[in-house]
Amino acid sequence: MNGHGYLPVNMKKTYRYTMKANSRNRVVIEHVEPEVDAGLFPIKRIVGETVMVRADIFTDGHDSISANLLYKAPKDNTWHEVPMQFIENDRWEGTFTVEEIGNYQYKLLGWINYFRTWQRDMQKKAEANQDVSVDKLRGIQYIDAALQKAAEKDKIALLELIELLDKTSDTDKVISLVMNTDLSTLMNKYSDRLFATEYEKELGVVVDRKRAGFSAWYEIFPRSCVSQPGTSGTFKDCEHLVPEIARMGFDVLYLPPIHPIGKINRKGKNNTLSADSGDVGSPWAIGSDEGGHKAIHPSLGTMEDFEGFVGTAKRFGIEIAMDLAFQCSPDHPYIKEHPEWFKWRQDGTIHYAENPPKKYEDIVPLNFETDDWQNLWNELKSIVLFWMDKGIRIFRVDNPHTKSFAFLEWLIEEIKQGYPDVIFLAEAFTRPKVMYRLAKLGFTQSYTYFAWRNTKQELTQYIHEIMKTEVREYFRPNFWPNTPDILPEHLQYGGRPAFMIRFVLAATLSSNYGIYGPAFELGITDAIPGREEYYHSEKYEIKKWQWEQPGHLRDFIARVNKIRKTNPALQMMWNLDFFEVDNEYLLFYGRVTEDLSNILLIVVNLDPYHKQSGWVNVPIRQLGIESGQSYLVHDLLGDGKYIWQGEKNYVELDPQESPAHIFLVRKRLKRETDFDYYM
Amino acid sequence: MNGHGYLPVNMKKTYRYTMKANSRNRVVIEHVEPEVDAGLFPIKRIVGETVMVRADIFTDGHDSISANLLYKAPKDNTWHEVPMQFIENDRWEGTFTVEEIGNYQYKLLGWINYFRTWQRDMQKKAEANQDVSVDKLRGIQYIDAALQKAAEKDKIALLELIELLDKTSDTDKVISLVMNTDLSTLMNKYSDRLFATEYEKELGVVVDRKRAGFSAWYEIFPRSCVSQPGTSGTFKDCEHLVPEIARMGFDVLYLPPIHPIGKINRKGKNNTLSADSGDVGSPWAIGSDEGGHKAIHPSLGTMEDFEGFVGTAKRFGIEIAMDLAFQCSPDHPYIKEHPEWFKWRQDGTIHYAENPPKKYEDIVPLNFETDDWQNLWNELKSIVLFWMDKGIRIFRVDNPHTKSFAFLEWLIEEIKQGYPDVIFLAEAFTRPKVMYRLAKLGFTQSYTYFAWRNTKQELTQYIHEIMKTEVREYFRPNFWPNTPDILPEHLQYGGRPAFMIRFVLAATLSSNYGIYGPAFELGITDAIPGREEYYHSEKYEIKKWQWEQPGHLRDFIARVNKIRKTNPALQMMWNLDFFEVDNEYLLFYGRVTEDLSNILLIVVNLDPYHKQSGWVNVPIRQLGIESGQSYLVHDLLGDGKYIWQGEKNYVELDPQESPAHIFLVRKRLKRETDFDYYM
Repeated sequence: MNGHGYLPVNMKKTYRYTMKANSRNRVVIEHVEPEVDAGLFPIKRIVGETVMVRADIFTDGHDSISANLLYKAPKDNTWHEVPMQFIENDRWEGTFTVEEIGNYQYKLLGWINYFRTWQRDMQKKAEANQDVSVDKLRGIQYIDAALQKAAEKDKIALLELIELLDKTSDTDKVISLVMNTDLSTLMNKYSDRLFATEYEKELGVVVDRKRAGFSAWYEIFPRSCVSQPGTSGTFKDCEHLVPEIARMGFDVLYLPPIHPIGKINRKGKNNTLSADSGDVGSPWAIGSDEGGHKAIHPSLGTMEDFEGFVGTAKRFGIEIAMDLAFQCSPDHPYIKEHPEWFKWRQDGTIHYAENPPKKYEDIVPLNFETDDWQNLWNELKSIVLFWMDKGIRIFRVDNPHTKSFAFLEWLIEEIKQGYPDVIFLAEAFTRPKVMYRLAKLGFTQSYTYFAWRNTKQELTQYIHEIMKTEVREYFRPNFWPNTPDILPEHLQYGGRPAFMIRFVLAATLSSNYGIYGPAFELGITDAIPGREEYYHSEKYEIKKWQWEQPGHLRDFIARVNKIRKTNPALQMMWNLDFFEVDNEYLLFYGRVTEDLSNILLIVVNLDPYHKQSGWVNVPIRQLGIESGQSYLVHDLLGDGKYIWQGEKNYVELDPQESPAHIFLVRKRLKRETDFDYYM
Repeated sequence: MNGHGYLPVNMKKTYRYTMKANSRNRVVIEHVEPEVDAGLFPIKRIVGETVMVRADIFTDGHDSISANLLYKAPKDNTWHEVPMQFIENDRWEGTFTVEEIGNYQYKLLGWINYFRTWQRDMQKKAEANQDVSVDKLRGIQYIDAALQKAAEKDKIALLELIELLDKTSDTDKVISLVMNTDLSTLMNKYSDRLFATEYEKELGVVVDRKRAGFSAWYEIFPRSCVSQPGTSGTFKDCEHLVPEIARMGFDVLYLPPIHPIGKINRKGKNNTLSADSGDVGSPWAIGSDEGGHKAIHPSLGTMEDFEGFVGTAKRFGIEIAMDLAFQCSPDHPYIKEHPEWFKWRQDGTIHYAENPPKKYEDIVPLNFETDDWQNLWNELKSIVLFWMDKGIRIFRVDNPHTKSFAFLEWLIEEIKQGYPDVIFLAEAFTRPKVMYRLAKLGFTQSYTYFAWRNTKQELTQYIHEIMKTEVREYFRPNFWPNTPDILPEHLQYGGRPAFMIRFVLAATLSSNYGIYGPAFELGITDAIPGREEYYHSEKYEIKKWQWEQPGHLRDFIARVNKIRKTNPALQMMWNLDFFEVDNEYLLFYGRVTEDLSNILLIVVNLDPYHKQSGWVNVPIRQLGIESGQSYLVHDLLGDGKYIWQGEKNYVELDPQESPAHIFLVRKRLKRETDFDYYM
């Protein structure tokens, strides 16, 4: 009876063709959504969000069926059950809300509802004036079966009903007894789910804390927080910046590696091969005789200084995010302690990082294929635990796409099993399939292509892909207009307006965003000719920033972040919708809470050089605005107030003044006389 | 390290997050196509067809990778390997051809090609004038490793190369040695696939014989093949019809149930409740004191007569298809022998089939939920084996959507494991998801909604769904313009042209089609008022057909079937494409063999009442016709020949003459003078 050769090995045991106990299950459950890669990976949610599950559920013949959505919270031992509703074309739907962080599970159960089938058929027969006296008896049997399992208080009701049915012969009376909703409730409660079909997979949800879905990141090199010229900045110096970073409204402060920097093959300014004595090297060339991934660069201060700094930030509502760069400088202690973790060349020299013809002489990659991989994995995990012990809960992982997928999946899973509040951001700027795989295997947030998406078409297409397709179930974007590695052309040439445009876009198109702080805030445009990279990059030298440099964006940034914090619609990822506007340079979109209590309409002029104007098309029906009714739109950015009516409304944006409107919609305006109300 | 709660149970063992031996595998394989329901079901193919497999395959970092498609024929113990080709965006593709019927398997293998990575890097470094002397040594190591496994004849070549490389220092010379293609071939042959990733599922292909993909069915009630009026037709009578059915070009002759018909609750003419003494009853009410599913209705003849009939048909190239109706009449022997296989009402009477308020008093359904289900399953299987023993290899399963899916899946699998040449046609006219499920679980062919798809939009939409989406991998359509249950409105009112239209559509839109023979061939339009059902249906009475009735379609049918048999393009299912034509009543489509050796352009006038004309848009580029070149289109139906040029060409179809063109395209025509060539 066996030999079903072609079945996927891991399906065999659940497969039905053999004569198994469940061969009498007649309900089919298929095409479950969401389900990432056939259930291989979990979906992601934020505490308080809902999980809406849909599936095709049906059976042979005409019997009526029921289906439940089952789910488990992280610490639950038993399943919660939610009845699913039939939509159409054999599609069913059920929803649950995730209330705590950690790993939820969900699965589906479908069964034939014999009692409801009987109810339905009784009614149909009665309507056709057919005799139901014999059918009645079967119903009584069902009720009697339920009776055996019923709680005392329900027993009476069921018993009474049996007696009533028993002595009632008038068809209409019988039907009214049969179709009684209390009865249906009781029967749903007590009738067996004979031959119930359980969906063959248990699916997962990773539930993260609020900040995983709503965060504003600020990146800064601590060594550049210089107090006295000619010296390196310290954590103590950084502490002085915290209040201002908090005032700007950021809640994650991300630091490039803070560890000792390699001395062998150290890079000079502008990534030159030969470093001068004074050169400080790249923080990503981790490790020296002063220590490795668990040490702090001496010139930044002591471990106590670091913990003090983390504490101060915390008091200002800011979390410190650390960099996890799983690589070493040629003089990292690991190289002596664990030579087997690295690749060696035939001449006995170590194999430094390269992507021919490019060479990274100051960095040595780890060999994840080493025979000693278990110890390597555990050591790397211990680095994460070490810094978590210092109060760190957010990690930005450097170039994860050059590390083993299996290792990363294991690492994140290992950590989040014990500490589900930990956030991992994937710094992968690579091919889409690879970026998505990293998100699937566990990264909480991911860098995106946002930095290179400028036109209306580029932005809408890309955002549709990541926010409106299945990708949204596992890929949580974090928009960065710049990074220490990326100074996009439009920032180089667009002037201050370009910075404002890109900032508003990042902060309102994505609930998670970040900037490479000082260089963005101060509008630095100094690039290596013909490249999208910073000239005299902070990666290779200490910068003394001129904080008061004219034209800085500090107040603009503060204003946008304040708008984000006071408008719930900007704190969720998936409620973004693009609307029509008759100008290719204008981007028009809305963010709205489900209950319509917070409606934002955002217009951005993508052209940093010229004034652009056009007619936006407001989807008033979708926003619950009656076509006759006028409404006030309040520009939270420029503070202007406009009375709009209907769908078509005129907008005009001069990048020199403000390249964007962030309109808060107020619907209560009925007549001009009400207008004072808002003044 | 465990507790990965949310992983689907059946994934756990292949899942990577634990520290398993394969944790060093760095290549990822995902999004494999085709793959039906995550591999739960096999795809379908016909002998000689190809299976093109695509997948996303990639790894971390910059290493170059290789991937193979592995497949097994039914009797193979080892896997055949086909190298996959990179397409774009991490997508890879590989193809194999299925050459025998039975169950094939396929899976994927991906690994890092260290040697090719080395070759690539060597070249890049050389181009950048970097020193490669040390890198050269690593290459020599790779080659030496291969050498250990190489066959004698290859050993020399590899050895020589090592020596050459060893003593060559000039970079250009080294590179020319390294990039040598013979070397690459040898290395692909012998270098090990360290840490190769195997796709976690083995996927299946059910390969069927040619007729499963190309067949013309003719349905006939043997009892109506009457020789003497007032008597029932017999198998001997049927034998006389075989030559004519063969002349018309049919190759499958399908018989409704030929078993004894129940006497209890037998239906009268037009499905009336009370049968007169003379009424013969419905063949689907199977079983009486004369026997059950393994017996033959006495008035049809003996088992020998039946086998003789099957043999005669065979000699004329016709296969007999039998009906599998898993249900009983109230006096079927099973009911006494196995009362536990049926449902009983509280008053001790048997539970006949019903779909309230509809009743089918002459039919008793089997209870697939019976505790004795194993014996029930085995008995039903024995019915199939019984008739296979009489030479039957094609079964049309009656109302499979009212039988247990698990049972049908088991039955078909059981039979096809031993007899992969058996064909099962699903007679399921029900909701789409249910029809698709039946196809997935194993049916070779399926009835469709064709009978109710009439307009251009209805036809193109539906055919796109079943032939151009993933559905085509498992659902093999069989188009029927009518059945004993269905006399569509357009046949009732469209007259002879409507029959011709629907026939050409069925026979050219689908490589599998069938007709409820006499009633179609003779253009019967006599319907129950307001219904799409035959009045005085043959289901309840014996018909004496007037074969020579004027206007019969016999010759038209013969002509179309001849065209099908002489044009390979009409013998495959998936090569159908719809083309533009500027008239909503005209349907224009093409069927073309891959090598363009057989090109058919088909135009059908969907309007049976009026002449329709329009300009078709011939995709000449796709057909390999140069834009300047004229070409001859030969109407194989009306025998007209036309010289066409370019894309836009004029057609005109008068349904009274012929509602369709089936153009064979001949490209060799260059000048008018060549024209004689075709006369």
